[in-house]
Amino acid sequence: MKNLIVASTSTVYGGNYLDYLYDEIAELFKDTDEVIFIPYARPGGISHEEYSAKASHAFKKIGKKLRGLHTFENPVEVLNRVNGIFTGGGNTFVLVNALYGLKLMQPLREAIFNGLPYLGTSAGSNICGVSMQTTNDMPIVYPPSFKTLGVIPFNLNPHYLDPDLNSTHMGETRETRIAEFHTQNTIPVIGIREGSWLRVKGDEIKLKGELSARVFRQGKEPYEIESETTLNSSILD
Amino acid sequence: MKNLIVASTSTVYGGNYLDYLYDEIAELFKDTDEVIFIPYARPGGISHEEYSAKASHAFKKIGKKLRGLHTFENPVEVLNRVNGIFTGGGNTFVLVNALYGLKLMQPLREAIFNGLPYLGTSAGSNICGVSMQTTNDMPIVYPPSFKTLGVIPFNLNPHYLDPDLNSTHMGETRETRIAEFHTQNTIPVIGIREGSWLRVKGDEIKLKGELSARVFRQGKEPYEIESETTLNSSILD
Repeated sequence: MKNLIVASTSTVYGGNYLDYLYDEIAELFKDTDEVIFIPYARPGGISHEEYSAKASHAFKKIGKKLRGLHTFENPVEVLNRVNGIFTGGGNTFVLVNALYGLKLMQPLREAIFNGLPYLGTSAGSNICGVSMQTTNDMPIVYPPSFKTLGVIPFNLNPHYLDPDLNSTHMGETRETRIAEFHTQNTIPVIGIREGSWLRVKGDEIKLKGELSARVFRQGKEPYEIESETTLNSSILD
Repeated sequence: MKNLIVASTSTVYGGNYLDYLYDEIAELFKDTDEVIFIPYARPGGISHEEYSAKASHAFKKIGKKLRGLHTFENPVEVLNRVNGIFTGGGNTFVLVNALYGLKLMQPLREAIFNGLPYLGTSAGSNICGVSMQTTNDMPIVYPPSFKTLGVIPFNLNPHYLDPDLNSTHMGETRETRIAEFHTQNTIPVIGIREGSWLRVKGDEIKLKGELSARVFRQGKEPYEIESETTLNSSILD
């Protein structure tokens, strides 16, 4: 049974890394003392060691050890024997490129379908979608494909931002960008704001946190769903 | 001799399409009555016909006819016999994918090196760089390569935005994204703000418009250059 937390952001304004999610994370990883960290998204270009140390510091607060996947000789094999994975944010192109380069995309997908508890934030959440094509990140590397894990039946736009009505900036709003995505693709997109997350248990996907989220489908008006809404086919079709 | 206007945006706040550039465009295209328009970036997903009509409306104001490249049976051949090209903004991934699909990237590059007057705005400017990897756009299609025309020896970030010091948003600033680019690439990046453009004449590249631009190089502090600055190797190295 799938078992995931798919969060818009690791950190909410005024908070510390992951702290708004401590209770949820402790519950997700209740059956393991050691969580394996996927550091490949390299936020700001930091090293895997630095990033793992940062995540480890947060996990200590909920009594869990954390070890970077990059420290294992055979990362594919690791996925089959651990009971918790956390993929941190950063650049989605860098993350996806690394997952394909290490041949981890398909084994990670299978492990998640087989019940491996998974936490993703930002880029680590983007990869849960059908494709990474609604990321906000810059294409700083060229991955072999934009297809991602597909463990949820739609795409995400994390750090979703409403149009700023007072802005004098002429660049596209997030909503315009997602509308452009839907000129080329049929996959629904959920814009999740910072402080929101999706809780996936088996085939049930529920919006959590205090904020609403925004649902975009090809050829239809976008609309808001409230927290605690279950994302079923009536919402996505 | 190369002869280009490479603009951050087609439209400045409070203005109409291209109007802040009318004098510059008239001078760039002074030797031709008909400019060929590349509409493939499809802003907001609009059709090539709609987009060409919009651009044509603006060009009429400076006494020029404009015809979409999509209306020709053999677009590659067209590049060798016309005397003006304008590539409009939209989604850079869609534009680059179309240029590769139509086998236009290399002929367009050659024509520009041979002196074809070229106007680019936004996505149409992005493609003048070495790669499209500092675009702000969403990866809504998967192009066969991120390499672009390389008619200027650096990359651009159009619609450059300074960090908003009052923001509570936790997504990366533009400066952070470009710093991440430089963890993976050595190409210098010029962030050009809305209202700025580069005037390229042969090997001379000059910043125009009222605003300064921001220069990013791998491993160095970013800094500002003022309007009328020539972007030579002492600035880019």
